[in-house]
Amino acid sequence: MAIPVTLSYMDSEGRQHFSPGVSAAKGGVLDIIDQTLLPREQKRLKLETPEAVYEAIKQLRVRGAPAIGCSAAIGLAVCAQRFESSSPQEHLQKIEACAAYLDSSRPTAVNLSWALKRCAAAVTGKDIAEMNQQLLDEALRITSEDIELCRAIGKAGAALLKPGMGVLTHCNAGALATAGMGTALAPIYAAMESGFKVKVYSDETRPLLQGARLTAWELAVSGVDVTTICDSMAAQVMREGKVGIVIVGADRVAANGDTANKIGTYQLAIAAKYHKIPFYVALPFSTIDRTIADGSQIPIEQRNGDEITHCKGAKVYNPAFDVTPRELITGFITERGILTEI
Amino acid sequence: MAIPVTLSYMDSEGRQHFSPGVSAAKGGVLDIIDQTLLPREQKRLKLETPEAVYEAIKQLRVRGAPAIGCSAAIGLAVCAQRFESSSPQEHLQKIEACAAYLDSSRPTAVNLSWALKRCAAAVTGKDIAEMNQQLLDEALRITSEDIELCRAIGKAGAALLKPGMGVLTHCNAGALATAGMGTALAPIYAAMESGFKVKVYSDETRPLLQGARLTAWELAVSGVDVTTICDSMAAQVMREGKVGIVIVGADRVAANGDTANKIGTYQLAIAAKYHKIPFYVALPFSTIDRTIADGSQIPIEQRNGDEITHCKGAKVYNPAFDVTPRELITGFITERGILTEI
Repeated sequence: MAIPVTLSYMDSEGRQHFSPGVSAAKGGVLDIIDQTLLPREQKRLKLETPEAVYEAIKQLRVRGAPAIGCSAAIGLAVCAQRFESSSPQEHLQKIEACAAYLDSSRPTAVNLSWALKRCAAAVTGKDIAEMNQQLLDEALRITSEDIELCRAIGKAGAALLKPGMGVLTHCNAGALATAGMGTALAPIYAAMESGFKVKVYSDETRPLLQGARLTAWELAVSGVDVTTICDSMAAQVMREGKVGIVIVGADRVAANGDTANKIGTYQLAIAAKYHKIPFYVALPFSTIDRTIADGSQIPIEQRNGDEITHCKGAKVYNPAFDVTPRELITGFITERGILTEI
Repeated sequence: MAIPVTLSYMDSEGRQHFSPGVSAAKGGVLDIIDQTLLPREQKRLKLETPEAVYEAIKQLRVRGAPAIGCSAAIGLAVCAQRFESSSPQEHLQKIEACAAYLDSSRPTAVNLSWALKRCAAAVTGKDIAEMNQQLLDEALRITSEDIELCRAIGKAGAALLKPGMGVLTHCNAGALATAGMGTALAPIYAAMESGFKVKVYSDETRPLLQGARLTAWELAVSGVDVTTICDSMAAQVMREGKVGIVIVGADRVAANGDTANKIGTYQLAIAAKYHKIPFYVALPFSTIDRTIADGSQIPIEQRNGDEITHCKGAKVYNPAFDVTPRELITGFITERGILTEI
């Protein structure tokens, strides 16, 4: 098994790092796999300028809220290593300006803003070398924490799986969305590590096909038995008795458990309920937004209609997310275990 | 309003005919719109050889069971007009051979076989001219009957609609699938003719996008307010209160009412049930197959995985149809009216 590496801090000798303890003095780059080229091409990018990191996030070369947060943090650290600052004060200003610039690359990813703020706050040193080390340490701390979080979610979720069980998932909440083994896909990887395999059905996930392009690819290269289906086939696959559990990720969970995720998740949850198949949401506990009482307060982003095949004269409706009500969710797979109360 | 003309018998002066009463002596062609080019291009084809008619059906230039039946019948008539037969007996042999050839163009469309058999059986004349006239009359009788059937289904179904109501449909069971105004879309056209408009949501219908390409196109050119959505968005659109009724077509209905239709129909029916939205199947009464007790006996065609976006190492599952159990169907819209018992 070789779960794909989505991102790393790559040092000047080409070694990938995922946790603190690396000297910032030698200089390094943000190393990511370009997800826009998957599954056709596996190309890694080495980024070292604010413009390059910004472009990679904006153009979805790296996507998935945790992966974006880690990439921005490492990106900030490698950019700082290249600033030509005449004083620590000027260096700090450049770091803060760079963080603000990277933060503007995507509007909605909460982790992006959170990770950059955390890195900037870690810079308390008195000289430039110390500041750069603090930045890199914090970026790699965020990265290693994300890896651990994924691993803990995986371990908790694997307890729900059995050898040969059919697992249906939607969109991509896997390794490619995080620095680690993902959220929704983590239980599948954890099961493999503990010695048994499941059979995964991956919704292609229209309109942008993250399931067909990303989930199918990362599971296939990891040695997982994965079958791509159209979103409209999920109920039929369930009816045929092929699905024992549904696991999806989450973009935001309200205090009452209502869950916003990629469009199509809600329809899937209804189909699972009809077939009496358990429906789980995998997520870091921190994704639960206590400031929001229920799903009705989660705004649904409308995306450009060009993403959907259409013809002249016909309109297009393209909500990017939907909200699955708590009543359709069997439980939540988190680093704290399987929760039915959150 | 100008509902697209899917097919006609076109005489030597370029006039389109849809009912008997045309002289076969002058010679004509099978005139169809090439559906493989829609919605990009509106190109009509004039077909007059067995090979051309066969190719058009096989390559889905004309599709939809009723439209295939009418096209094959008219195709047979125009081919016969061009046979160089030395005797009525030889002519009959050529007609029968041509019918058998056309019948082999697609394996599963029941109407194809039925229409060709009916045409061949109509040939009882003693001379070649009379035989050709009988063939053309029968082909145009089949065509006009289909048009009337659609009209009657439309009239019955329009009674379920109200001005401004949201109507959700899947795949294409419209004018492009018949010689007339379709089955599932007929109530929408009939409502317009009687003076009121509805608002249609059209599932794009993966993997072959018949909804996005065909349904959206024919409704848009007919002046109907139509919005294309991804198949996975249907439940969200229902949740938003935008859908008052779901109407779909049917490929085959078992004696107990279980309905085989394009993959995704079943998932849609489950979502409608969850939202307490009426779910109707529109079909000619003859589509009910009394020889099949229930849906479990309807075989599900598996199509080539290449139709679905996928990547190396990932499998693909591609059932072309699914079966919606009777319990999820509110009623059947037929030429005999709205039926809850069939």
